[in-house]
Amino acid sequence: MMSQEIPYKIYLSEEEMPKQWYNVRADMKNKPAPLLNPATHEPMTLAELEHVFCTELAKQELDDTTPYFDIPDEILGFYRMYRPSPLVRAYCLEKKLDTPAKIYYKFEGNNTSGSHKLNSAIAQAYYAKQQGLKGVTTETGAGQWGTALSMACSYFDLDCKVYMVKCSYEQKPFRREVMRTYGASVTPSPSMDTEVGRKILAEHPGTTGSLGCAISEAVEAATSTEGYRYVLGSVLSQVLLHQTVIGLETKAALDKYDITPDIIIGCAGGGSNLGGLVSPFIGEMLRGEKKYQVIAVEPASCPSLTRGKYAYDFCDTGKVCPLAKMYTLGSGFIPSPNHAGGLRYHGMSSVLSQLYDDGLMEARSVEQTAVFKAAEQFARVEGILPAPESSHAIKVAIDEAMKCKETGEEKTIVFGLTGTGYFDMYAYESFHDGTMKDYIPTDEDLQPGFDSLPKM
Amino acid sequence: MMSQEIPYKIYLSEEEMPKQWYNVRADMKNKPAPLLNPATHEPMTLAELEHVFCTELAKQELDDTTPYFDIPDEILGFYRMYRPSPLVRAYCLEKKLDTPAKIYYKFEGNNTSGSHKLNSAIAQAYYAKQQGLKGVTTETGAGQWGTALSMACSYFDLDCKVYMVKCSYEQKPFRREVMRTYGASVTPSPSMDTEVGRKILAEHPGTTGSLGCAISEAVEAATSTEGYRYVLGSVLSQVLLHQTVIGLETKAALDKYDITPDIIIGCAGGGSNLGGLVSPFIGEMLRGEKKYQVIAVEPASCPSLTRGKYAYDFCDTGKVCPLAKMYTLGSGFIPSPNHAGGLRYHGMSSVLSQLYDDGLMEARSVEQTAVFKAAEQFARVEGILPAPESSHAIKVAIDEAMKCKETGEEKTIVFGLTGTGYFDMYAYESFHDGTMKDYIPTDEDLQPGFDSLPKM
Repeated sequence: MMSQEIPYKIYLSEEEMPKQWYNVRADMKNKPAPLLNPATHEPMTLAELEHVFCTELAKQELDDTTPYFDIPDEILGFYRMYRPSPLVRAYCLEKKLDTPAKIYYKFEGNNTSGSHKLNSAIAQAYYAKQQGLKGVTTETGAGQWGTALSMACSYFDLDCKVYMVKCSYEQKPFRREVMRTYGASVTPSPSMDTEVGRKILAEHPGTTGSLGCAISEAVEAATSTEGYRYVLGSVLSQVLLHQTVIGLETKAALDKYDITPDIIIGCAGGGSNLGGLVSPFIGEMLRGEKKYQVIAVEPASCPSLTRGKYAYDFCDTGKVCPLAKMYTLGSGFIPSPNHAGGLRYHGMSSVLSQLYDDGLMEARSVEQTAVFKAAEQFARVEGILPAPESSHAIKVAIDEAMKCKETGEEKTIVFGLTGTGYFDMYAYESFHDGTMKDYIPTDEDLQPGFDSLPKM
Repeated sequence: MMSQEIPYKIYLSEEEMPKQWYNVRADMKNKPAPLLNPATHEPMTLAELEHVFCTELAKQELDDTTPYFDIPDEILGFYRMYRPSPLVRAYCLEKKLDTPAKIYYKFEGNNTSGSHKLNSAIAQAYYAKQQGLKGVTTETGAGQWGTALSMACSYFDLDCKVYMVKCSYEQKPFRREVMRTYGASVTPSPSMDTEVGRKILAEHPGTTGSLGCAISEAVEAATSTEGYRYVLGSVLSQVLLHQTVIGLETKAALDKYDITPDIIIGCAGGGSNLGGLVSPFIGEMLRGEKKYQVIAVEPASCPSLTRGKYAYDFCDTGKVCPLAKMYTLGSGFIPSPNHAGGLRYHGMSSVLSQLYDDGLMEARSVEQTAVFKAAEQFARVEGILPAPESSHAIKVAIDEAMKCKETGEEKTIVFGLTGTGYFDMYAYESFHDGTMKDYIPTDEDLQPGFDSLPKM
């Protein structure tokens, strides 16, 4: 069963690790639409963005022409602590499925933050430190981003203030303790600390919070405190840029063994992992060098690509952030409480939205019990307990491998395994107990979200 | 700060991975004392051990002359899924401590079981499968061993019945769910399933269980069910044998860069990790080739090496297992409930006990708040959230590095980082909240344990 040539895990040496991030926007003919000032509807300027973001990050956000950015030495140094991440040949899964397909996964869970989020967290913390800032603020939902940012800030000795969606804060005390271990302060959102938090609490006294609301609080806390800026773990183009370290390593590892993938699969929430994984491959497509089948996988309960509108929308509930053009369910969309794990943001990265609109990738939505079934199947043979988010990609990778079994095609499938599920055992428990529910919103369920879109 | 020559992480290629386990007993002049039949006090024979253990494992248990055992191909194949594990140069910790010492750690937490336990679990499951058994039984305390064994059994399609110490079962529902994800059945111990369980419950109706009691139940369940055998995650010589993959890889990685360690440090509970890490190095000492300072680190609350007696003792509460000569606190010893995490077994591997008695290693005991302080210090700079058990080794590694800072010596320190602390956040929480207590038993506290030693 096992090829003698391709090892279970392909590791790059430290010398082979990428020294630059890749900016796919530089190769896009149709550039992603610019961020707009929510008051004037004019494109955001650097001066405006600098109030919210670190200056270097604001520059990266606006730059759609520079194809490569050097990764600063300090960040390379930190990357070396947990990167390169392995590209694993899923021999055991292939055998179990009895498929002629060749399956590879890029595993980003080999660090304490437990996910790929650290790739951008360390970059954002670095630029904040360089700028002489005292600290940063952010929001976290499931907790992966907050954990990663806490770790990065601890490394650079920066204050880290995390607004954690209240229901997660209460349901995931362990996530909170990990952040505390790294020295972060964690506040359940909405809180009485901010004006927008007090306003939301006055309007909805019993609310358990949302990501959009926590973003508003974190932005207010950053912009109203001297020496602080706001950082975000997904959606933004700067985040996708940092996350391309995933795709560049994947490509280098495949190239090392002369492997050309047919299908590349990533789970999609705000787009940080998907964009990071697929950008270098889509770059080849944009330059007319190669052709791949790229598949974004999203939860059926939060289907921004498959059922959203491509429109300008608010990024947060409090409407203090710039407007972004993206596939969106509307900032008023609230995912069903039945939905476990992340991937619950109402919109999609504007870069990925444009690429999707241009036909460079396809999208599929999957239901969560099917996702957990795939997760368990994967865990039992590959020895990694996957995060629910990552398991969306596993589900479609298995689907594609089973198609190959029917047709006899020996396709090469690469998917992103973004992280581990150690902090998601409540969800696994409900899956085991049979109490986990699927949820597909009706068109009427989606309407309130669409009604919340800004009038432009 | 960073040497250009030594990477952050030294990885072996798959070809460089060990193909054999090393049996340190073959090089010992003073062999470990044999296991004795608890009824006759005669050395256990293969025929007797076969009732409890798989035949191949019983042979390994008794063999103190064969220096190397080939690792079967199927096990090598599984090892390739998560091994080689990285030997990490702790550049960031060195910098933070401002020490001239060079610190390395062998990180065994890079698999879903989250610890080194998988190295032996997969071996034991393999031999059970080879023998045509239906399944295996075991006990688990903190849950690392049960998780590892569940994963290994799932891989070989074996039944896995885990008796989990009742208080852990209730306090660590997530550990239980991970085992269920891998298809294991998990029973809180003591249970009404076994005679010994019913007896213990009748005598101590409110008991929350102990490791010694869970062992008795697992052994009874194995020996009374057709097609089952009992497996154990530590203490036994066969387990140390499998775990030498840790030390052999460590040595190969060091040799690759011409590094000779001065100090080798491992945490010590039953001895599985410590023995696996240090065996190849102690082998060199036994053969008169090299000299190292080897340090076993144990909790002050369960100090078998530093304060125990070297004597024959029962391995379990129900006294159904063979007697082993070991450093022991007595099978009647009960660790304080203040003690978090593992390393709570009353005795120490008979191999390590003999080596310690012969002066080939030293032992230190450390208190748990100091351990968690070291854990947090390590996590903040090295990006890995360590298990409480592993953090015992971190504590002494930091102590030794700080001594080097005083003396200016550039010692090379290697320690074993056995696993991650994702499932130990309650303990971290009590550390953060300041409610964590230290506990050093008085001589009087230890006496009831010593009184329980068998009269020989």
